[in-house]
This record gives sequence, structure tokens and C-alpha cells, in this order.
Amino acid sequence: MTTKVAILGGGGMATACASLLTENPETSVSMWVRKPEIADDINTHRENRRLLPGVKLAETVYVTSDVDAAVADADYLVIAIPTEFVRPALTSLKSHLTGESPVISVVKGIEKDTFYRPSEIINDVLGPRPVVALGGPSHAEEIARRLPASVVAASGDIELARATQELFSTDRFRVYTNIDIVGVELAGALKNVIAIAAGICDGGKYGDNAKSAIMTRGLVEMNRFGSSFGAEPATFSGLAGVGDLITTCMSPFGRNRKVGERLGRGETLQQILSSMEAVAEGVNTTRSVYNLSEEKGLEMPITTEIYRVLFEGKSPEDATHTLMTRPPREE
Amino acid sequence: MTTKVAILGGGGMATACASLLTENPETSVSMWVRKPEIADDINTHRENRRLLPGVKLAETVYVTSDVDAAVADADYLVIAIPTEFVRPALTSLKSHLTGESPVISVVKGIEKDTFYRPSEIINDVLGPRPVVALGGPSHAEEIARRLPASVVAASGDIELARATQELFSTDRFRVYTNIDIVGVELAGALKNVIAIAAGICDGGKYGDNAKSAIMTRGLVEMNRFGSSFGAEPATFSGLAGVGDLITTCMSPFGRNRKVGERLGRGETLQQILSSMEAVAEGVNTTRSVYNLSEEKGLEMPITTEIYRVLFEGKSPEDATHTLMTRPPREE
Repeated sequence: MTTKVAILGGGGMATACASLLTENPETSVSMWVRKPEIADDINTHRENRRLLPGVKLAETVYVTSDVDAAVADADYLVIAIPTEFVRPALTSLKSHLTGESPVISVVKGIEKDTFYRPSEIINDVLGPRPVVALGGPSHAEEIARRLPASVVAASGDIELARATQELFSTDRFRVYTNIDIVGVELAGALKNVIAIAAGICDGGKYGDNAKSAIMTRGLVEMNRFGSSFGAEPATFSGLAGVGDLITTCMSPFGRNRKVGERLGRGETLQQILSSMEAVAEGVNTTRSVYNLSEEKGLEMPITTEIYRVLFEGKSPEDATHTLMTRPPREE
Repeated sequence: MTTKVAILGGGGMATACASLLTENPETSVSMWVRKPEIADDINTHRENRRLLPGVKLAETVYVTSDVDAAVADADYLVIAIPTEFVRPALTSLKSHLTGESPVISVVKGIEKDTFYRPSEIINDVLGPRPVVALGGPSHAEEIARRLPASVVAASGDIELARATQELFSTDRFRVYTNIDIVGVELAGALKNVIAIAAGICDGGKYGDNAKSAIMTRGLVEMNRFGSSFGAEPATFSGLAGVGDLITTCMSPFGRNRKVGERLGRGETLQQILSSMEAVAEGVNTTRSVYNLSEEKGLEMPITTEIYRVLFEGKSPEDATHTLMTRPPREE
């Protein structure tokens, strides 16, 4: 029996998911792309020339800007839209998404003002329906090129997590299940704060010891913050935690690491943001996490220092000094 | 009151420790170097020209090949000798190390045939005396250049861990305490197995997703193995675990990662070893860990595949395929 999956989104990750899902001949894939001219371009060239150039999409992927056509009879919806656009997109599509098909979210981030996780935005707009979050180190371009990757499918609904595992697994894409969607989604957002700190180590040439230490102690903070929201500590030691943190802090292309690198070289946040096309999500996430940790009385020394560097003009050198001269403590 | 520390060893890490400890004017530091001509050279130039060039050693560091002179009245012994030489060195020095001064071990590794951790070798040769292990991401060269680093001092004797914390801490070197010396020492050895796997990802150009995933799932194995020896899971999420794993897998200079990189490019272990000066410890550690995990019935899929690649001629491609097509499971 054919399983029908409708992907909402026309970006690199949406395209990589389409490419992955078509490896299974029993899966039929449609892709809803907002702009008709982009849908046409992908259809004509069987390639997302703008966001995932060089990757051929199977003829069987049905690409359209007509949402009703895309989601008709869909067994699953995949949401592959940047965090800030999830709410407006789903709000405008809501009247078309009338079925009860479960949602697979590949969205990483936290909503700016509400601090909602992607699954919370989805449920807030579409009403209660089962959601599973796919997390872990997953550069779209590498997935589409069939390089090996391992990710985690997390949902309170373990049957949905298992179904997602079956749907996405290939001999190059390994999916683990996890019931801790809170942890997986929070890890995906919090890592961007630590990536700014790791970038500062790069820009300031602080060395490998310092960068590894900031990532490790950053993970402790991510875990502490997550636990206060009910996340499981083990999730932060897993693919969505340390796994995604490593790629985000190491990849030379990551926007958040790059912001940190330029801060470390002495630029101000204003200088950096004025020359960047897209906002690095970690900047807003730092503000939200800092405010929430203050409210909850959580000890988040690295987040606090990144906040001071970003928004209060503290120098990276002074921030490092503050971190290194805190009272001695247990690990 | 002056604290006297005697460092046994003349390598980069021994020199970095000497440099670090002399930042505290209340600490008096001596360094025992086996070969008189090297001790003389360091004394003359106030620099370890061979193993830590460019780093000036304070005038107050007393460097000698006379072990009695080095250890006289020492409050602490620091052992900074490569794992394979700890037993022969301590055996030959034993009659001179008559006091009961506690031992600070900066040795990372596992003894080849006994599978003893460094602290176990020390106690085996010198008899029962308190030992603390210093672990975490700590390239000697970066420490000596006063770049920031954070490490962990682990001992069942928490007072000794705290004393070590006080002794080593500077405004650029942050020391956490931990009571889990088993975990800290095992992590320091096991990471080298995973570094070979990470190197294979580099050599085979498997991408960032794959490398992060292998490090994350490798950490799960390290943890599983450690737990079966009584180590604490939290240690593997800490500086000696994930922290040291990150530097070891990322640094372009690491010998174990390098072995993996060359395997990934298609060379055989024989070709690689015949062209390397020092044996990469991870090669022997893989054999020991594989044998012990078989004995104990532990599931160690990455270690098993690295064993097959190293010692049974399995190709990295086939090993990757085996790992990616294992039965689906929970994280």
C-alpha cells in the first residue's frame, strides 16, 4: 500500500526530505511550494536550483503551489519551513489542512515572542494532532547527496515516532526513536546560543581546548535549561543534543557560529547584522533563553556572557575572563 | 606556605604543567627528566626546545635527571609519562618514591595487556596511595601559551580533587572536580577508538552529518562500556568525555584521527603503521575494548566495525553499510 506524504516548504530541507522519501517506491511524495514560479522551476528542471543546486529530484515528486492538490489524501504532513514563518504559513493554510494527518516537523528553532517550540506552534494553529520532531545533525545538502546521516524522531506518541522511523529510513539515513520531543526541540534551538560562543573561540583564536570546553559546558547549560522544562537529560547526550551541537559549532558555514566568529574578531553585533542576509536565530534565542533563565533562577553562565556580549557591548575577552574566574566548582 | 610539586616526565604535558603551576608564587616546582642531556638542555635554554618549542619556562622550575633531588619533600607528584612507559618508569623509580605524597596523573590511555587505567598502574607499582586524574580537552601547547582551558580533576578522594583544583587553577585554566576517576580515565582512552572512526569519515569524505553522528553514537558506546566498569554516565557528558572527544576527533594533528583518515582514503593498517613514528594508542585500545566487550556481551557496534577494519581487512565502506543498516532502534 502506498503511503502519501505531503511536504510543506520549498527550501533545502524540504527538497532533501522529498529526495529521501522517494527512495521507498511505496511512498508517494508531493511538495507544496508557496511561490508558483518556484514550483514551476523545480518541476521543469527536477531540481531546486536556488536552494539545493545539483540534486536531481525523482520524476515522481509532485511539486505544486496549490496546497489542496498537495495535501489531498496525505497520510502525513512534513513541515519544513523556517521557525519564524511556521505560524503565518500554517495560519494561511489552515482551512486547507482539514484532515487529521499527523505532522512530521523538521523545523529547528523557537518562536521569538512566545518561546513556543515548533510542535507547540503547530498545535496552536492547527489544533491538537500528533506531531513528531526530526532532530540531529542533518545538513540538507549532505542528505540529498546520499551521504550517511543519523537522526532522531521524537514524539510523545511512540507509534508515530516508529512510523516516521520506517518512513524515512534508508541504507544511508538512520533514524532512532525517542519519546522526548521537548528535549529534541529545545536542543535544536539552544545549540545556536552555544554556536555563537564557539564562534567567538574561533574568531578570537582561543584554541581547541577552549572551544571544546565551551561546547561541553554549553551542553551542561542546555541540559539544565531543558530539564527545567521537563526534557530528559539523555536527549542532550544524543543526536539532537551533542550531535547537532557538534555540526553547528564546527561547520564553517553555520550562521550562528559565523556571528560569534566575527564578534571574536572585534566586530559589533550591529556591524555583523547589517551585513547578513538572514538573521542568525541564535541571537534572538540568546535573548529569550537569558530572560527565561533569569525568571526561573537557572545558572546559565555561558548564555549570560553571550547575552552581555551581544546586547550590552561586553568584550569577548572580558566575557571569557568572567567565565574563567568563576568560583571553583564540581563538574 | 609553599607547596612543593615534583613532575615526573619531560614531555610537552609535563612542561605545560610546570608552566601552569609556576603561575602561583606559593608553588615550588621541580621536574624530573630521565635523560640528563635533555634536563641540561631545558635548564640551559629555559625551554623544552624539542617537545614544546617557543614556551619559556620560569627560572624557578628546577629541572633535573636526579630523581631524589626532584622529589625531595614533594607534597605532590605529577605523573606525565605516556601510558606504555608508566610501569617501567615507576618500577625503576620506586625505591626513590618513598614518601606518601599523593599522585596527580595527567596520563591518558589504558595499559595494553592488563587493561589497567593509569591510576591502577600507579597503585599497582607504588602501592596504595591517593591518586587524582586530570582529564578533559588539554593540548599541552595551548595550555603553555596561556590559551583558556577547562579540565576535570577526578578522584575517589574528593579532598585530593579539591586540592588539585586549587593547585592548578589560574585565570586561564579552570578545574572542575569529579569523584568518578574510573569514568574520567576510561573516557580518556576510549575516545581514541572513536577518533579513528571520525577520521574515517574525514578520509572518506562522508560529511559533517556522518562525523557528528559517529561521535554521538560513539559516546553512547563509551558510556555503555564505562558503566559496565562502574563509571558514572554524567562523566561521559563532561569535559573528559564529550569535551576531550571533540578535540580528539576534530584536531587535524591527532594521531588516532589521522590513522582513521588514512584508512578512509583506502590505505591499510600496515601501510599506515609502517610510516608512523609513534603507535596511535587507539589501535591497541580498539583491540582491548573489542575483546572486553565481547567477553561482557556489550553491544559496541562502532568499536566492532573499527576492529574489523583495523584487524580483519573490512573496507570502511562495508563497515559504514553495516552500521547504517542495523535494525532500527530507540536512541
